[in-house]
Amino acid sequence: MPLIPPARSLLWRSLRIYQVYGANTEVGKTVVTTILCKGARRFWADEETAYVKPVSTGPATDADDLHIRRFAPEIDTKTLFQYELAVSPHIAAQASGQPIASDEGVLVEVSKAAARQASRGPGWLFVETAGGVHSPSPSGSTQADLYRPLRLPVVLVGDSKLGGISQTISAFESLKLRGYDVDTVLLFREGQFKNYEYLAEYFKEHHDIPVMSFLQPPKRIHNDPNADAEAMSRYYDDTTKTDDNLRDILGHLDTRHQTRISRLESMSTKASQTIWYPFTQQKHLTPDKITTIDSAHSDFFQTLTPATTPPTAPTPTNPPITPQLLQPSFDGSASWWTQGLGHGTPKLALAAAYAAGRYGHVMFAEAVHEPALALAETLLGGMGNARLSRAFFSDNGSTGVEVAVKMALRAARVRYGLEEGGERLGVLGLRGSYHGDTIGAMDCSEPCVFNEKVEWYEGRGFWFGYPVVEYSQGSWRVRWPTEMSDLGGRASVSYDSLSAVFDVENRESGEDGRIYEEFILATLRKLVAQGQKFGALMIEPVVLGAGGMLLVDPLFQRTLVKVVRKNPTLFGDGPSHGDRAGDEKTWSGLPIIFDEVFTGLYRLGRFSAASFLGVDADISVHAKLLTGGLVPLSVTLASESIFNAFASDDKSDALLHGHSYTAHAVGCQVALESLREFQKMDARGDWDWAKAAHERIESVPQRAGSRSPSSNAVWSVWSPEFVSWVGQLPSDFVSGVWALGSVLAIRITSADGMDSYKSSAARSVQTALLQNRQSSGHDGVDNSPGNVHTRVLGNTLYVMTGQTTTRESVQRLEFSLRGAILEAKKGDGI
Amino acid sequence: MPLIPPARSLLWRSLRIYQVYGANTEVGKTVVTTILCKGARRFWADEETAYVKPVSTGPATDADDLHIRRFAPEIDTKTLFQYELAVSPHIAAQASGQPIASDEGVLVEVSKAAARQASRGPGWLFVETAGGVHSPSPSGSTQADLYRPLRLPVVLVGDSKLGGISQTISAFESLKLRGYDVDTVLLFREGQFKNYEYLAEYFKEHHDIPVMSFLQPPKRIHNDPNADAEAMSRYYDDTTKTDDNLRDILGHLDTRHQTRISRLESMSTKASQTIWYPFTQQKHLTPDKITTIDSAHSDFFQTLTPATTPPTAPTPTNPPITPQLLQPSFDGSASWWTQGLGHGTPKLALAAAYAAGRYGHVMFAEAVHEPALALAETLLGGMGNARLSRAFFSDNGSTGVEVAVKMALRAARVRYGLEEGGERLGVLGLRGSYHGDTIGAMDCSEPCVFNEKVEWYEGRGFWFGYPVVEYSQGSWRVRWPTEMSDLGGRASVSYDSLSAVFDVENRESGEDGRIYEEFILATLRKLVAQGQKFGALMIEPVVLGAGGMLLVDPLFQRTLVKVVRKNPTLFGDGPSHGDRAGDEKTWSGLPIIFDEVFTGLYRLGRFSAASFLGVDADISVHAKLLTGGLVPLSVTLASESIFNAFASDDKSDALLHGHSYTAHAVGCQVALESLREFQKMDARGDWDWAKAAHERIESVPQRAGSRSPSSNAVWSVWSPEFVSWVGQLPSDFVSGVWALGSVLAIRITSADGMDSYKSSAARSVQTALLQNRQSSGHDGVDNSPGNVHTRVLGNTLYVMTGQTTTRESVQRLEFSLRGAILEAKKGDGI
Repeated sequence: MPLIPPARSLLWRSLRIYQVYGANTEVGKTVVTTILCKGARRFWADEETAYVKPVSTGPATDADDLHIRRFAPEIDTKTLFQYELAVSPHIAAQASGQPIASDEGVLVEVSKAAARQASRGPGWLFVETAGGVHSPSPSGSTQADLYRPLRLPVVLVGDSKLGGISQTISAFESLKLRGYDVDTVLLFREGQFKNYEYLAEYFKEHHDIPVMSFLQPPKRIHNDPNADAEAMSRYYDDTTKTDDNLRDILGHLDTRHQTRISRLESMSTKASQTIWYPFTQQKHLTPDKITTIDSAHSDFFQTLTPATTPPTAPTPTNPPITPQLLQPSFDGSASWWTQGLGHGTPKLALAAAYAAGRYGHVMFAEAVHEPALALAETLLGGMGNARLSRAFFSDNGSTGVEVAVKMALRAARVRYGLEEGGERLGVLGLRGSYHGDTIGAMDCSEPCVFNEKVEWYEGRGFWFGYPVVEYSQGSWRVRWPTEMSDLGGRASVSYDSLSAVFDVENRESGEDGRIYEEFILATLRKLVAQGQKFGALMIEPVVLGAGGMLLVDPLFQRTLVKVVRKNPTLFGDGPSHGDRAGDEKTWSGLPIIFDEVFTGLYRLGRFSAASFLGVDADISVHAKLLTGGLVPLSVTLASESIFNAFASDDKSDALLHGHSYTAHAVGCQVALESLREFQKMDARGDWDWAKAAHERIESVPQRAGSRSPSSNAVWSVWSPEFVSWVGQLPSDFVSGVWALGSVLAIRITSADGMDSYKSSAARSVQTALLQNRQSSGHDGVDNSPGNVHTRVLGNTLYVMTGQTTTRESVQRLEFSLRGAILEAKKGDGI
Repeated sequence: MPLIPPARSLLWRSLRIYQVYGANTEVGKTVVTTILCKGARRFWADEETAYVKPVSTGPATDADDLHIRRFAPEIDTKTLFQYELAVSPHIAAQASGQPIASDEGVLVEVSKAAARQASRGPGWLFVETAGGVHSPSPSGSTQADLYRPLRLPVVLVGDSKLGGISQTISAFESLKLRGYDVDTVLLFREGQFKNYEYLAEYFKEHHDIPVMSFLQPPKRIHNDPNADAEAMSRYYDDTTKTDDNLRDILGHLDTRHQTRISRLESMSTKASQTIWYPFTQQKHLTPDKITTIDSAHSDFFQTLTPATTPPTAPTPTNPPITPQLLQPSFDGSASWWTQGLGHGTPKLALAAAYAAGRYGHVMFAEAVHEPALALAETLLGGMGNARLSRAFFSDNGSTGVEVAVKMALRAARVRYGLEEGGERLGVLGLRGSYHGDTIGAMDCSEPCVFNEKVEWYEGRGFWFGYPVVEYSQGSWRVRWPTEMSDLGGRASVSYDSLSAVFDVENRESGEDGRIYEEFILATLRKLVAQGQKFGALMIEPVVLGAGGMLLVDPLFQRTLVKVVRKNPTLFGDGPSHGDRAGDEKTWSGLPIIFDEVFTGLYRLGRFSAASFLGVDADISVHAKLLTGGLVPLSVTLASESIFNAFASDDKSDALLHGHSYTAHAVGCQVALESLREFQKMDARGDWDWAKAAHERIESVPQRAGSRSPSSNAVWSVWSPEFVSWVGQLPSDFVSGVWALGSVLAIRITSADGMDSYKSSAARSVQTALLQNRQSSGHDGVDNSPGNVHTRVLGNTLYVMTGQTTTRESVQRLEFSLRGAILEAKKGDGI
């Protein structure tokens, strides 16, 4: 297939690969690399040593590999891309008239060269970069960014010249903030500036990294090439043969390599003895089931490859494949629904570092700092909900929900004049909802497998059944719960498109709207007649996440909100308060809480998931994607009418909640960067390709003539063709499917009839996706459709991309999924 | 007084100060600065423009300020420290034979020069650094670190030479990760390497920072100084007079300066309209009561100075003092008890950035990554508690406590064969304890002001009264609660020293031990007789934090743990299980939870606060100092015997808790760095000065001959002299005081008789401390004892330092505190 495979971090047991970066251009990278090559060849005489220069500029007659060929003819050397002009590769490439090497192209060639070297047996490989760490590559990205997916351990050649201390430390910091491990800093001993002495102490004290040094190479003798070559040759002899130092340096690098591998290989065992995992029954969690993650980049983890035996015995024409120890694995759960901008994004790393450097964490009560205020402003502005005016910070979705509950119930209690410590107010919600793991957040859901064994759990409220939406047997269906179909006499309603289902304004005035309203009102009246008291309506707009990845009919949620707002007398308001319903910003009936922790901030393609419903919340909870996927942070937004319920002359009437790291600067700064980036992507039309694909299929009739993707249409990065392919699989294998924004959910028909968290029906597809192991060819480049790491919820398999995942990646994923589904289906005997 | 005042960030309304950093040495910093100076002089002709070079190396005849004097004689120029040798300042200073300028010395001189300039009226000041951003200062620290406390906005001069792209980006990143704002990048336009073109696009795309350029200066004419000067002079004329560009650049800098100030001045008003503050009654929170924090460094916030009028009218000999807009304020609550390594620590910023770059966040269920595993190992190892073997990650102390409760109660339920969903198990605790803000954590405390108005709160358990320790009226007293003094007939017991109180092994065998055991056992028997069921004992070892900063008699807590462990039959164990008490690692009686969120990880001077009690917990909760004070993270440690209670073939028996960012790599990496740093400080004896001071006074008799601080003695950074001074103030003003580790707590005698969260007795001292405003003299250097930002808990004022706070800082704080206490006392009419 033509799709570009994901880059793979390079790690082989027997091949030590080091990438040589320079603190600056002209610091002696090539000389140092030559010494390292010669030393490796000398001290590991039975093994192979090779040198690769991925990109070289300047006349080929003066190239770095020629230098190595001349002074270390015993070394296998290779330049992968050569451009004639002696300037930065991005200019040289443009000027060359040759095709410009793409980042992927460079990574593929380096990977191939490394794989070839690994197949030759144990040895060393040094990969020399060009210029400084941030010198541009042919395509224009900087080298530190370009090579990051390979995450080779680094030898940093320091700068021994005047100013070199600064260059060396800064270059190191740039590498570090991209997640590189710098294993040593090497530089020339120089008498006047003494950079070596300073840097050795600096790196030992601050980073515990050894700085080692070599003699200065002889001065170039420009007018006598032979004498120059002879001097250089002598220098290499001296350095290689007499310098014990060199043995130490290579010994250190060898030890680092071995230590890294043995640590990686022991981690799952140690984890199984030391870690208590979240939401995991560990009785059967043997080490082989624990994924060891070495690093992550963009959409991919780089995980330790499970030990396997080669499928076929090697033959002369089919040489043994040396197993690569790491493999890319698509992060198909978006790391528990958090990822938006990809793993290892330098922008977020730098934002985190900036806030850490500017503030660390500063206490927030009665204080304000720029990232917190700017984030509050950006979030309130982005929501497009005129009710919301206040931002309360906490640490995660669960605490954000507890804050929301404290806010709403107090507001209801104050409004309705109920006594403190009197009868408990409950929440109205939807069955199968899930709002977090702290006990108060758990209390917002009805008893279920997530909470039934939790001490102190007490479901406080009432939870409605509701119609769910999915694509099945060739059409979009809204399936009604039993209690409702009794009312309207229907089990399900079919629609031509998902956009038609989401056309809530039209549908509201029809039959569905009428039945929903009737059903909700009748239920509420019954509850009130039973004497139940409520203090909030809390829903996850559009999608119930942990409850099973259910797409809820948006019209039902819209109607629920409207009915609650229109009927304040049901909840305790006297008739005199009825006029408040006319105030656009004051809550009415019950405070409405939208838990957008999962569904908000572009997960479903829009800033706020509330916009799908066309109704606004009084309180809105945000987390997960809030920081683009980097650190925990939550913001609970509220209206002034909720806020005012806490105003009093008594300090203890305040909202008594606040964690120590409330509004921590690192989280706020990262969230601010993330939201701005999402908004920029939205404005720039980064998802137009996905919108256009759905517009073709999804557009409701009156928009058929429109060319540009409609801003109101629903869309997904998952192609309509793929969704419809899945939806048309036999119903004894797939019950239904839906895709919205970056989420795809497939309900596998459960053989055991279970429809819950405990079911394992979707596991077979999950296993097939994960076992889609990378089969590296002899060239070391992956040709398989790709390994996908997913999580399942009962019999639902979901796959969630990030907001920066490319169209090509999704195509690749769909290809993987088709394969895995068919394989699982075969296994299922269907 | 001889104490060095804290550095103050420099910001005046009318003086625009920019610090010029270079991407490398020899990039033309001086030329660019000369152009900026000349331009400022030209376009702001009515104002002053000045130039300062803090540290210069090389012969004075070739110094940068001479260059400016020659080509911009209209500019006021000054070099503060000059060293002859043309090498890096750290070498030049050593070689000079002159005294080496300390970092503080350099900061003081720059501050004075800036203050002088500000007093001359509106204008510009350019401060030119030496070499690159990380070039060492005379003392050896790098410039980017040295100047950080001033946090001047930066003009970065980019490198237009080959390799300069890399140098410029790396230098920028080093500044950024120290919290600097780089307002523009300036460099020379150069034809061949086109660094300008690349960097302009790069900084616009990635950082939204304008890169602007100047013409290349003429080549040096070495053999004809006059021609050289003439060419240079022409260059400056051309650049200054005809380059519209320069006007744009300065206009941009001017706008940035004005925008920064107007934003700072509007922030408290905007915050009062937008932010919902934690634990704050906002009805009376007017903008003037909100602290605007511009940045923070080491122990100090840099806050916006409240608008004030000068106390005296200016006279010719006493010129007007231009108010500085920022002031340092000691972070006396350690930012809600979180700070250990100081604000803006580059080590932590880089650790955060590294983890962000290597992983971002990766999902943790059934996966493992290096920072999480290494942190678990380090924490388990550091605790010295053989029971603990498992680490469960969550996001903050409150969620960590909920996890602990879920663990403990399940273990008790399983052990004692109680039915799920049956009778609720409660916790045993201490009165006034506080474990967090989520509802489940609140349920662990008895009804009090923090929770009585929280919906759904339900105190679940029993809370003991207990003896508290404080220094009062010349001795250390252990005061017994009423119910206990009935038992032993005593209200309080006096001790010679705090170490004597903490000598729990000796005391245990005495009268106190006997009475405590009797009291606890009698109470438990009564509770059991009433039919109460318990599932855990949960205590904050040694100090109850939010409950009022109470020092609890460690012997009481020790006895409580031992009694619970020795009497399993009280809690449901049959006699046949009695043998488990002999197993050192299996829990007995009830699972013992230590909430060390506040007291652990060196807050009280030791890795674990449990070591003061000499008994080990089965479950231990850690947060706050865990990340050194940067980001939220919590770890709940547990024993294998607790862990095993969740092992089952049923998935839903697992511990169903786990936030999306569980074990987020940034938090784990930062925590790992912090713990290692604390342990290094401990091993290195960084607190020996404090230990020695207490050893003199505190040592119990048998250790009197010992010279070295005993590792078992209790100590504090607060001097015994100061504590005893406070403790001997009249009892109608101060009721008691104690200090341990980095914590000092002073109980002010409440005039209104209230002893609770609502009391405002301690506010007068707090106000005096905060009003201790910096009075800057004409030299711009602060001579006041210092402004201290504190929080109070009812009638208790506490001050908490970080773990890196110096002895000098504590002396300064004690001086401030004496002043504030005396002032408050005076106001109190005593």
